Amino acid sequence: MIERYSRPEMVALWSAESRFRIWFEIEAHALDAMAELGVVPHSSAKAVWERGAFEVDRIDEIERETKHDVIAFLTNVAEHVGEEARFLHQGMTSSDVLDTCLSVQLARASDIMIADIDALLVVLKRRAIEHKMTPTIGRSHGIHAEPVTFGLKLAQAYAEFSRNRARLIAAREDIATCAISGAVGTFANIDPRVEEHVAEKMGLTIEPVSTQVIPRDRHAMFFATLGVIASSIERLSIEIRHLQRTEVLEAEEYFAPGQKGSSAMPHKRNPILAENLTGLARMVRSAVVPAMENVALWHERDISHSSVERMIGPDSTITLDFALVRLTGVIDKLLIYPARMQKNLDRMGGLVHSQRVLLALTQAGMSREDAYKAVQRNAMKVWESDGEMSLMQLLTDDPEVTGFLSAPEIADKFDLGYHFRHVDTIFKRVFDA
Amino acid sequence: MIERYSRPEMVALWSAESRFRIWFEIEAHALDAMAELGVVPHSSAKAVWERGAFEVDRIDEIERETKHDVIAFLTNVAEHVGEEARFLHQGMTSSDVLDTCLSVQLARASDIMIADIDALLVVLKRRAIEHKMTPTIGRSHGIHAEPVTFGLKLAQAYAEFSRNRARLIAAREDIATCAISGAVGTFANIDPRVEEHVAEKMGLTIEPVSTQVIPRDRHAMFFATLGVIASSIERLSIEIRHLQRTEVLEAEEYFAPGQKGSSAMPHKRNPILAENLTGLARMVRSAVVPAMENVALWHERDISHSSVERMIGPDSTITLDFALVRLTGVIDKLLIYPARMQKNLDRMGGLVHSQRVLLALTQAGMSREDAYKAVQRNAMKVWESDGEMSLMQLLTDDPEVTGFLSAPEIADKFDLGYHFRHVDTIFKRVFDA
Amino acid sequence: MIERYSRPEMVALWSAESRFRIWFEIEAHALDAMAELGVVPHSSAKAVWERGAFEVDRIDEIERETKHDVIAFLTNVAEHVGEEARFLHQGMTSSDVLDTCLSVQLARASDIMIADIDALLVVLKRRAIEHKMTPTIGRSHGIHAEPVTFGLKLAQAYAEFSRNRARLIAAREDIATCAISGAVGTFANIDPRVEEHVAEKMGLTIEPVSTQVIPRDRHAMFFATLGVIASSIERLSIEIRHLQRTEVLEAEEYFAPGQKGSSAMPHKRNPILAENLTGLARMVRSAVVPAMENVALWHERDISHSSVERMIGPDSTITLDFALVRLTGVIDKLLIYPARMQKNLDRMGGLVHSQRVLLALTQAGMSREDAYKAVQRNAMKVWESDGEMSLMQLLTDDPEVTGFLSAPEIADKFDLGYHFRHVDTIFKRVFDA
Amino acid sequence: MIERYSRPEMVALWSAESRFRIWFEIEAHALDAMAELGVVPHSSAKAVWERGAFEVDRIDEIERETKHDVIAFLTNVAEHVGEEARFLHQGMTSSDVLDTCLSVQLARASDIMIADIDALLVVLKRRAIEHKMTPTIGRSHGIHAEPVTFGLKLAQAYAEFSRNRARLIAAREDIATCAISGAVGTFANIDPRVEEHVAEKMGLTIEPVSTQVIPRDRHAMFFATLGVIASSIERLSIEIRHLQRTEVLEAEEYFAPGQKGSSAMPHKRNPILAENLTGLARMVRSAVVPAMENVALWHERDISHSSVERMIGPDSTITLDFALVRLTGVIDKLLIYPARMQKNLDRMGGLVHSQRVLLALTQAGMSREDAYKAVQRNAMKVWESDGEMSLMQLLTDDPEVTGFLSAPEIADKFDLGYHFRHVDTIFKRVFDA
Repeated sequence: MIERYSRPEMVALWSAESRFRIWFEIEAHALDAMAELGVVPHSSAKAVWERGAFEVDRIDEIERETKHDVIAFLTNVAEHVGEEARFLHQGMTSSDVLDTCLSVQLARASDIMIADIDALLVVLKRRAIEHKMTPTIGRSHGIHAEPVTFGLKLAQAYAEFSRNRARLIAAREDIATCAISGAVGTFANIDPRVEEHVAEKMGLTIEPVSTQVIPRDRHAMFFATLGVIASSIERLSIEIRHLQRTEVLEAEEYFAPGQKGSSAMPHKRNPILAENLTGLARMVRSAVVPAMENVALWHERDISHSSVERMIGPDSTITLDFALVRLTGVIDKLLIYPARMQKNLDRMGGLVHSQRVLLALTQAGMSREDAYKAVQRNAMKVWESDGEMSLMQLLTDDPEVTGFLSAPEIADKFDLGYHFRHVDTIFKRVFDA
Repeated sequence: MIERYSRPEMVALWSAESRFRIWFEIEAHALDAMAELGVVPHSSAKAVWERGAFEVDRIDEIERETKHDVIAFLTNVAEHVGEEARFLHQGMTSSDVLDTCLSVQLARASDIMIADIDALLVVLKRRAIEHKMTPTIGRSHGIHAEPVTFGLKLAQAYAEFSRNRARLIAAREDIATCAISGAVGTFANIDPRVEEHVAEKMGLTIEPVSTQVIPRDRHAMFFATLGVIASSIERLSIEIRHLQRTEVLEAEEYFAPGQKGSSAMPHKRNPILAENLTGLARMVRSAVVPAMENVALWHERDISHSSVERMIGPDSTITLDFALVRLTGVIDKLLIYPARMQKNLDRMGGLVHSQRVLLALTQAGMSREDAYKAVQRNAMKVWESDGEMSLMQLLTDDPEVTGFLSAPEIADKFDLGYHFRHVDTIFKRVFDA
Repeated sequence: MIERYSRPEMVALWSAESRFRIWFEIEAHALDAMAELGVVPHSSAKAVWERGAFEVDRIDEIERETKHDVIAFLTNVAEHVGEEARFLHQGMTSSDVLDTCLSVQLARASDIMIADIDALLVVLKRRAIEHKMTPTIGRSHGIHAEPVTFGLKLAQAYAEFSRNRARLIAAREDIATCAISGAVGTFANIDPRVEEHVAEKMGLTIEPVSTQVIPRDRHAMFFATLGVIASSIERLSIEIRHLQRTEVLEAEEYFAPGQKGSSAMPHKRNPILAENLTGLARMVRSAVVPAMENVALWHERDISHSSVERMIGPDSTITLDFALVRLTGVIDKLLIYPARMQKNLDRMGGLVHSQRVLLALTQAGMSREDAYKAVQRNAMKVWESDGEMSLMQLLTDDPEVTGFLSAPEIADKFDLGYHFRHVDTIFKRVFDA
Repeated sequence: MIERYSRPEMVALWSAESRFRIWFEIEAHALDAMAELGVVPHSSAKAVWERGAFEVDRIDEIERETKHDVIAFLTNVAEHVGEEARFLHQGMTSSDVLDTCLSVQLARASDIMIADIDALLVVLKRRAIEHKMTPTIGRSHGIHAEPVTFGLKLAQAYAEFSRNRARLIAAREDIATCAISGAVGTFANIDPRVEEHVAEKMGLTIEPVSTQVIPRDRHAMFFATLGVIASSIERLSIEIRHLQRTEVLEAEEYFAPGQKGSSAMPHKRNPILAENLTGLARMVRSAVVPAMENVALWHERDISHSSVERMIGPDSTITLDFALVRLTGVIDKLLIYPARMQKNLDRMGGLVHSQRVLLALTQAGMSREDAYKAVQRNAMKVWESDGEMSLMQLLTDDPEVTGFLSAPEIADKFDLGYHFRHVDTIFKRVFDA
């Protein structure tokens, strides 16, 4: 995590303060349940809730001596609670606290990111509707293909992030489990009902079978899901970078007054946010493999996963949160240039309509092979003229073509509106689903 | 894919024959829909279904000339159908066929793998119940911790693969979409109802908005899910490898009569299947990142994803299918040695009961800190004696301990059954859910 | 590996025939050395060289029974050699043969790929010199920056692949080691001089300390190096894809007569080879992490690396070999359009010269801040006119600017040649090094 | 980067203070060269060196307005230097400073890590020599194979880290280049001799051809090399984790007085440092793919690499530095238990000598097949007795065996020293190379 690419709310979630707060709640709720079961005195639970407190610095100090963070935390809490703190953590193991805490943090991080996606979806929908019928060239392989609308591009992004939203909700559900099962997960010294109570209070489900730790396939699925979402961010960012290229310039990131694009070249306006998002996507993705390598812990548990998660837990969620919000801002304020889109659409001399002519010729009785050759022959001339020649004119002058289609019939195939007849259908599929 | 690590059914799914068969069905169903819509003559659809055929070799031959596989396929089909084949593929683009075919293949591959997991779950459940109460040592960090049962280990694996089953079903749903939307996905020359018809016939859902191609976030999610499942395979395989270590030897892969463990050392019996599974897991996982890199196609589409998918499509599904079946066989025939488990349990002089004593001391009024020190002090002696000394005896001889617990009270803390009181609860959670 | 993306020479290297041929040579050379040391009769070595033979099918047949490939091979060879074959493999273990064979294969694969890079360098140099002074716009962030020459772009690629050549040679050296050290690598039953002899005969260096297997850090470095080379292929491919975009069209992949760009759109000419290379690069890169995961074998060895290497050994080298040759072909026949480059250079109304004016203004005494603002102010007008306005004209009309620079002084800053004064120097650095 | 896994020296290298210090040096040296070339007044360079200064906070403040870090830095320096600062950065672009600074940082980070490896090598050598002849069982597949010495294990690690040292030196050389070539790398406004001067002063080589940025294949190779080194750390860490397993316990991480292995189980002594190193290795490896994805920048440059490098630059080097030093500490203080090694060696009833008997039988005239069967038959009995039976005894009682070997001849094959005859040779190869 670096400050430049982070937002305060997500950073706060991963602070030492937040972590110890969650630990405290887990321990205190567990004590409540134990008191309810008659295992510890009610007065102990009451004392912990009333007098329980901790200080990050003091915990660090104690940890430097004990080299064990949970013991340091408990010792510090006991300093506040006094004698009655001795029932805290009874029958539990550090992992009960650490793993359940991580579940809470990842669930809360998910909530933030789900809200991020919701905000992105709102913006994508607004701008998609705004440009629902704005004509622009569709490109395959970077080459002009056939007309689309700019709204369709954004509708696609909307659909993709709707899927990502559903995936993130599933990943959240996968990760939001609570384990209070003691050493090697047998509940030998703690009643399973304690786990049930803590799970309920912390908004988690119980882990059906833990082995001191929560199984790491859950975390692997979680970080893999973040990697997929990051890849979608990369896709939309690269779209924007392409659209902003000097020769294309159909859209542009908002450029603030006073902003400098280059220290050396005053004329530059660069898609630096989209480029930045491309890099951030790589970083979120980089957590996927380590998270998967974490799954195969030895026997009931080893601690190799811990250093990995101390890093990717905050890093991936902070980076993805930041990237989602940045992307939302980019789309929200994106400068969109319909006039330039039309200019680009026109620059190929009508080549983008080649398929319709091809189809019309075959429907008029020409063999597909002959029709393909006839259209390609004329299209290549237009291509080589760099759009100076007109495909419509060349076809009208080609006797092999006019043997099947009249000039008005040919002209009819160059109608832009024809391509947009189903935009409504697609928008209904995407936005009314 | 290499033959050694593959099963015929999955390999067949990825054969040229299967692929062209699916292409044929997609094209023929599309033609049906077009005929129904009055766009093409019914006789054409009828002719295709009746006379339609193809030969893999002939398609290859044509492709060498045209350098375009779908055109080669259509040309070959036309050689069989004749004149009426000219309506085939009308308004469609190659991607409509290729991408929908890939969806069908990945969905069918999922069905095979779901069945694989089902078979694995059956075996895991059977063996878990068989060893539900077989005592064995639970290990954290590779070090003896506290007792568990062997059934618990398998119950954990069962729960993990149950999750993987649900994930694979979700991934299948994600990938099983149909796009018949023509160039750049606008349905300019093909009615959306054709897509609906083909989707229904091929067992797919419609792609709400495609851009000539089906968006690759779906595939990324699919391959990421396979990577998680592979990681779970790795976990269970590593468990077996650990259990089979000479010094541990609590379980062993079945060793066939006549099998040779080593060309040089006749005494060897190695966990080579589990080791092999560890390697295969790495390979399945290696497809995750390329699948994610495939998401960011340029504009409406580029073809950079294609070479990747030609490889990882078959490779990942064939390898994972093989690995799941191999793992099922390993678990099914696993030689399990309860006597050795008991021997290992006993070898630490009762150290595994240290926590219970610790708890009993605190419950008897000793401070947690003092209790921890008292138990650790005696435990270290046992540890250093390599299990020759008995923790129970040492504690009984320790006046600081006996100030709080009598000898019978101490002895009571060394009861194995105590640890297994909740095995039933856990089994109910896992198997009755 | 799939046939479509492979070349015969590299495929042959990985055939069963090649593998067994190398095995035979290793075993026979080892026998020579043992005979020389007096450990086995000279007649045995002589018999093996004279009558030694094998058949792939027969070996497969035996392996199905013994489940051990090296034993199957030796049995088959013994069928040809007779009684005297019994000294073969004495004191050796399967890994001696398998690992040394893999070293030979990877070294030979390196030789092929080094030759591939050499061929690529020749083509890059030829075309770089051809276009050494062809002006084209340099782009940062996809936005016009300042002029470069097309030769400089290719010179950069030349320098990058020269580095890759050196890296591949280093990787080859890293991997080209021979281990004939017996079980757990102690030479207990085989003299180290046997290893020395085999190493020399097979063109390898000796492995200083092996543990039955050759340490896998060597292989990890090898596959990581292939991953870097693949990434350079991706870079150059993406450059070509960008240059071929409809709006840019400064270069284009050669388009064969009769080739079809799209089954639906006859006008398409797509950079499909470069796109394909982008995908292949992802695949070569995907082997890097599994190769690194292979390093941490358990104790003296486990066999988890084997299945990985059976796949990535052939797959990565075959794919990279194919990609290098394909890239060479693309560059060799690349259609380069200097006129279009000039047209693109001119389309921004002279904005690309903004930095020179900025510098001239500061040198003439204007503060850097003021100069930046003055140039940016005028540049933005040109930008917004889509290149219709001329920066030179606007500056000449700006009194704040002309307070420091005269009209001729301003005009002087718009000289293209100025930017190319150091092209010679750079070419000398790159090609005369 | 998190503090827990970092060392001050490496952290300092990546501080804002260090970065700006390097920027200052680059800019000031460049100014010297320009003054020498007569492009700027000597007084300017003199003023910068004399009065040049910066404050991190002030730079941050300015950057918040300009959104450009290099401009903010220059503005701050100018606040100190005054008027004569206006020649600073003349003809340069931000990347000249940023990329050259990154080269300096990675080179210095390499120097720290090379020193780390040197320290590790010293410790490995010392302990290897200490245990050069300490017998221990060699294991393949986790199963007892044949005897090795503990020194051999460490000699292997020494050889592996010697290779890693050489690789890191090569990676350092690859990355230690200087680019001061201006916008798009043409030296249009800056003389190449400025680059030469700065390179020399900063301890770098010149970048033969840059494109505003230093090509990222260099960085990819650098981070890939760190990934290989990390994988070697993982290997040695996993070796230690295996050795410390309760049932094996041939070595153990040093356990500090007062340290607590588990909050719940006072008897635990866990290999937590080695487990931690396993996790850290995964993290260092996770930077490899993003670094490779960074290579394919668009045209002359885009800035997608920047966010990635801001993270992996510090993270990977800080983590690897920490891991190397931690590993050195683990090896340095590793508790090694020769008595336990001998006990483990003996526990298999002499099975580890099976190969020698096999060889002796074939040398005595038995066919290899028959000898293998005879030895395997007896070995399996020992195996199934869990080492209670003695292989030597069983063989002596087997008439088929004694038909070829006498009892003393059999006994002779069970000599441990036999296996260590070549330890000297191997040590010479490793330590005297």
